Amino acid sequence: MSLLESKLDDMGILVPDAPVPAGSYLPYRICGNILYLSGMLCFRDGELTHTGPVGEDQTVESGYEAARISAINSLAAIRSALGEFDRVVQFLHVNGYVNAVPGFTESPNVINGASNLFAELYGEIGKHSRAVVSVSGLPLNSTVEIQLTASFR
Amino acid sequence: MSLLESKLDDMGILVPDAPVPAGSYLPYRICGNILYLSGMLCFRDGELTHTGPVGEDQTVESGYEAARISAINSLAAIRSALGEFDRVVQFLHVNGYVNAVPGFTESPNVINGASNLFAELYGEIGKHSRAVVSVSGLPLNSTVEIQLTASFR
Amino acid sequence: MSLLESKLDDMGILVPDAPVPAGSYLPYRICGNILYLSGMLCFRDGELTHTGPVGEDQTVESGYEAARISAINSLAAIRSALGEFDRVVQFLHVNGYVNAVPGFTESPNVINGASNLFAELYGEIGKHSRAVVSVSGLPLNSTVEIQLTASFR
Repeated sequence: MSLLESKLDDMGILVPDAPVPAGSYLPYRICGNILYLSGMLCFRDGELTHTGPVGEDQTVESGYEAARISAINSLAAIRSALGEFDRVVQFLHVNGYVNAVPGFTESPNVINGASNLFAELYGEIGKHSRAVVSVSGLPLNSTVEIQLTASFR
Repeated sequence: MSLLESKLDDMGILVPDAPVPAGSYLPYRICGNILYLSGMLCFRDGELTHTGPVGEDQTVESGYEAARISAINSLAAIRSALGEFDRVVQFLHVNGYVNAVPGFTESPNVINGASNLFAELYGEIGKHSRAVVSVSGLPLNSTVEIQLTASFR
Repeated sequence: MSLLESKLDDMGILVPDAPVPAGSYLPYRICGNILYLSGMLCFRDGELTHTGPVGEDQTVESGYEAARISAINSLAAIRSALGEFDRVVQFLHVNGYVNAVPGFTESPNVINGASNLFAELYGEIGKHSRAVVSVSGLPLNSTVEIQLTASFR
């Protein structure tokens, strides 16, 4: 068992199979040592765990959980792309999208659910630059979407 | 005539000149073997073919067509950047933005209009990772915006 | 004093220290010769200079100013990452997000506040590809967010 797998085990996180794309695209694409992941939604066991906008159907706290689950799906895509979690050299950039009511200002606190998980698991490697916005709609009414770019060996 | 040009011909697609940027920026930028394209709107003959939000002024079907036209403008920018279509090695990542009413959930079906075109034309090369969101407004009220990153030789 | 510092001086622009991230992330990340910056807001002296949506609390003109200030914060992050402004080889891509009322169509004119500044300061080096959208909410209610990717030596 690799270091990352042990950590996931200790944290009680089960990384599922990579989710099936919700359209005509790939879950990831590789160019050189860069891994581009598709936007990941908060799927678990084939269903979205959180739907609808924060500020209406969801709170900042439940949105944080949705971001964490979307991040776990990013881990699933990493394993699917690279065969193992430990080949990541650096998390580079995260685009975080929050489905929210107009004028929502706390999107960083929601997307921290993903950023904190990456940093907890990977330490310095898991830190990243980030752009967060809130939008008026996400695929399948998901509460959060996380799109990650990373480097690997 | 190149293979890609033949295919475009067979599909009845005429790729126009690259659209003029709607602001102070370039239609594309190159770094090493990576081509960054600007966000492309659904321009044809100098006018937007589709304006306004899906769910109000547009349907999923007409939005799909808008995404296809935005993708054709991406092809125009590829030819403008690289001189020919065939120099693309891999489509890497697509950011797809749908102008839509709040709570719109079918943005993947709209952006498939772009993703399907890339895959029909280029086969495996044309496949890509993708992040799709719906937003409350796009430049000039375009229904769709497609932003592509690709590698080339 | 470097050429860029002289220019900034002539233009009366004081580049502050890089802003503290508003969440669990880094202001920038480097991979090879590519610099990924986080989304920058219109902070000055620890406060946002412009909040709320364009079309309601802000105009296109004040939004332009907000974009310019967000761009100055991008310069701050460049200096923090690279030690000096002159190491940038090329501005590559800008994602510009405008906090705006639904149906807002002039987002390019707002984000020009950032694009024009980069081009004024850096000339050809400062030009970039770009994708602009308007969204229903930004972190801390900022009027603009600018996310830049650049290459350096």
